[in-house]
Order: sequence, then C-alpha cells, then structure tokens
Amino acid sequence: MPIEPRAKVWLERDGRLVLSEYRVRMLELVQETGSLSEAAKRMGLSYRRAWGKVREMEENLGQPLLETAVGGAHGGGSKLTPLGTALVAAFQRFRKQLQQDMEDEFRSLFDVKRE
Amino acid sequence: MPIEPRAKVWLERDGRLVLSEYRVRMLELVQETGSLSEAAKRMGLSYRRAWGKVREMEENLGQPLLETAVGGAHGGGSKLTPLGTALVAAFQRFRKQLQQDMEDEFRSLFDVKRE
Repeated sequence: MPIEPRAKVWLERDGRLVLSEYRVRMLELVQETGSLSEAAKRMGLSYRRAWGKVREMEENLGQPLLETAVGGAHGGGSKLTPLGTALVAAFQRFRKQLQQDMEDEFRSLFDVKRE
Repeated sequence: MPIEPRAKVWLERDGRLVLSEYRVRMLELVQETGSLSEAAKRMGLSYRRAWGKVREMEENLGQPLLETAVGGAHGGGSKLTPLGTALVAAFQRFRKQLQQDMEDEFRSLFDVKRE
C-alpha cells in the first residue's frame, strides 16, 4: 500500500479566508447554474449560509465576486464578476499546479517507487 | 493588504493519516526532549492522547516510529526509530519545498507584485 501526499490550499488576506477549495467549488456551481440558490442546493447548504460565505469572501477580499440580478420571472440570477471569474480560474490552475509539484517533490524526497 | 497562499500537507496510506504537520511537530519534540511525556506536555496533550497518536501513526504506516526504553531512574525515555527520524526529516524538506513552490506558483498565476 503506497503512501500518498495530500494537501489543502487556500488564500488569505490579513489572516482572513478569501478563497478555499470548498468556496471555489461553490462559485463554480454559480457559474454553471447561474444561480446562487441552485449552487447552495448542490452544496447541501441553505441559501442563507451560501450567501453568508459569499459576503464573507467579498468582505475579506475587499471586492465583489458575485453580481445578482434582482427580480424577473425566475427571481433574478447570479453570476460571477469578471474578478470572480478570473480568481476561480487562477485558483484552479494554482491548485492543479501545486498537486503536480507535490507529487514530484514527494517522489524525489521520499524515494518512492511507482507501481 | 496582499493576498497570501496557505497550504496544509499530510501523508496518507490507504486513506489513513500517517504524518501531518502537527504530528511531525510532536515527533520532533520527542527528538528534542528524549521523552514522549515531555513532548506531550509541550503540545498541551495528555500522555495518553499523545501515545494514542503515535500508535495510530505506527499502525497506519505499518512500521514503528518510536523506541521506548522502559524503566531506569527517569522511567525510561523515547526516541525516534531510524525510520521515524528519516520520515520527519523528509517531511520537513517536503513541506519547505512545497511552501516555496506554492509561493512561486502563486506569484506567477495571480500576477502578484511583491511589495
């Protein structure tokens, strides 16, 4: 049974959470569904709790991540701001790149033979 | 206020925890003090709980990490096995290397200017 490295990454500003894997997943679901309420549902969160997480990220970042259209036949919808979209994409590249770095470092430092 | 990347790394075998930053800190304290009881104290853990963590790591790894000398004037002492020593050193290099990788990737992906 091989030993495997694992990592969790997140971003902070002034010691406060700005983006995490979990929160980026939530923002991606907003992107996919066009709705924070639907994203919340798929994350198993109440709308109130999902909204709280978005506000917290925006506050900690000091910039808006979500644009919400009020009203309309379906009660409006949400989408990411250009900054939100850019941050989500950068975070995913960052995470993928680190995963690769981690596997490389692990193999070189722990002298692990691949099976 | 700059955004900063953070990461937590650990090792698993068959989905079970083998080493984490916290547990490596505990093993390092055993190395430094020659005593699991003293290491536990400095971690703010009961001896029983620290011992439990060591047993769990050993079980998940399938190899001993600690050698305990029974008896003697000071009730014996503990030290790391050669494997334990090697793993702690490799883990610290691994963590340091990943921290460096993370900062490099972050700067390149998020286009962050250094202050």
